[in-house]
Order: sequence, then C-alpha cells, then structure tokens
Amino acid sequence: MLTIRAATAADFEAIWPIFQEIVSAGETYAYPRDTTKTEGKQLWLDNPRRTFVAEQDGDILGTYYIKTNQPGPGSHVCNCGYMVPAKARGRGIATAMCLHSQKVAVELGYQAMQFNFVASSNEGAVRLWHKLGFETVGRLPKAFWHPTKGYVDALVMYKWLATGC
Amino acid sequence: MLTIRAATAADFEAIWPIFQEIVSAGETYAYPRDTTKTEGKQLWLDNPRRTFVAEQDGDILGTYYIKTNQPGPGSHVCNCGYMVPAKARGRGIATAMCLHSQKVAVELGYQAMQFNFVASSNEGAVRLWHKLGFETVGRLPKAFWHPTKGYVDALVMYKWLATGC
Repeated sequence: MLTIRAATAADFEAIWPIFQEIVSAGETYAYPRDTTKTEGKQLWLDNPRRTFVAEQDGDILGTYYIKTNQPGPGSHVCNCGYMVPAKARGRGIATAMCLHSQKVAVELGYQAMQFNFVASSNEGAVRLWHKLGFETVGRLPKAFWHPTKGYVDALVMYKWLATGC
Repeated sequence: MLTIRAATAADFEAIWPIFQEIVSAGETYAYPRDTTKTEGKQLWLDNPRRTFVAEQDGDILGTYYIKTNQPGPGSHVCNCGYMVPAKARGRGIATAMCLHSQKVAVELGYQAMQFNFVASSNEGAVRLWHKLGFETVGRLPKAFWHPTKGYVDALVMYKWLATGC
C-alpha cells in the first residue's frame, strides 16, 4: 500500500539518494549533475511550496514538489517535479504522485499545471504526462543537453485543472 | 546617441522608476505588481548574470538583464528581460538592447536565447521579437492574468544564436 504524505526535513536523508541517482545521470532534470546535498535540499525541499514523499512499508519510493511557476500574472499556474528511483519504476508511483499533485494543486488554488523542461528523449515521462491529460504546448529546439544523445528538444507540457483531474 | 553599458548598483535609482512603471501595470512581466524596490533590485540587478542600461544624454531610457534560463542540461540557453519606459518608446531602444543582448549572449558562451512568458496581448513585443529572429515555440493557454483582458495566452519565444545575430 502506497502512502503519499508531506515530506519532513528528516525525510531528506531518504530523498537524497533518489535525487542524486536521477540528477547525476543528467538525462532528465535541469539541475547541474554535481548538485550537492545541501543545494539539493534547498531545491527540492526548502524552495518549493510543498514537497511530498511516496512511502511503502517504511521505504520512500518517490518524491515530488509543487511550486508557483511564475509569480504575479502567472501565479495561478503551478509547476511540479517528480522523482522515482530506478528500482521502484513500473509500479505506478509516478502516476499516483501526479494524480495526488493535481489534487493538491487545486486545493492550493492553482488553475493549471506546467512542466517547463521535459527532455523529449524522456519518452516514458512524455507518454505518461500525455496519458494524465497534459498537452505538449511548446517545443524548445535543442534546449536540453543529453549526456549521450547531445542536444535534444525540450518540451513544455501543460494541463488546465479547473475542470477537475 | 544611445549607449548601452553595464549597469552599476547606483544605476538602480534610475532603473527603479522604469521597473515600477512597467511591473505595477501588470501587463507584461511575471512579477507581482506590488514588488518592492528591494525585491526589484534583487530580481533585476543582483540575481541575473549581467544587467545593462541604455543611456542617452545622461538619461537612462532602457534596461535589460541576461541570465541562464535553466541550469545543468539547459545552461547553454539564456533568458533576457527588457524594459523601456513609455516616454522612450518608438525610438528603437528595445531593438538596440535585444541586438546588444544577443552579442553579449554569444560572448558569454550561450547557444540560444529564450523568452519564457511573453503575454500574447503584448503585440508590439511579439512583433518585435519575431522581426529580430525569435520564433514562437510554445503557447501556454490562459497562463497570463492580464488586469483588463483577464486570462490571455503566454508565448514561449526562442532563437538559436550559434549561427550569429
């Protein structure tokens, strides 16, 4: 049974290996591959509006954040980032977190959710976000430097939430 | 004769009225309309990689910043913001600053320039960026709350610089 709950500062000990696995690979997130633990905590736990963990039998198998994407005239649109370690993929954890995040977004008063920078090479993620109702609304030519594929396009994905999840 | 030069901390006294005029209108920039002078200085002068002013006969008639748009795998793409006060529009100052910024971008090693959040209602700006070689690569539905028009789309605009300005 998977539980999604608010992350505490203490949870970062379990979040960090997930963050480091994904960020050091350099294939999906717009963070420097050598991001330190202190910087990672700031980016993932301190700066966002809320951070959650997905827990099963006491193991943290996923995490996501939600934050305002643009202040002022854009503050009705939120942004989320999700991480699932390789060992826990294929079990629907990203789906569960994305559905959870859409509910949280509505509760926090957001009207829409935007992903700013999805590497087009991350085909599994693109497929999943489409399945969960996100549209590709932008394509940034060669905006993502992939460690083995070189320059690939980055996608902007977007979902209006006001009509429900 | 218009001179574009690096901004100093002292220049913020002249930048602030321009920033405040534009940001308090809420029609173009994703900053809160009540952004304070201290916050404005941080956003415009302290956080970006470089900030410039356009000066004519000792008057500051425009300003722009350049910064990295996304760290890590996106760090070859920069982002700029430009401001010209109403009293100085129609004189080509935005054009001069955008051309200047593209040269600076190449000097700093960037490959491309991206505008993340151009209000589609800001037709003059959209036309100008197109004329200067930017493509509309994304359209974010209703992502910009305009004070009189309500929700309007925001555009993502992009130019690959490596082949020159």
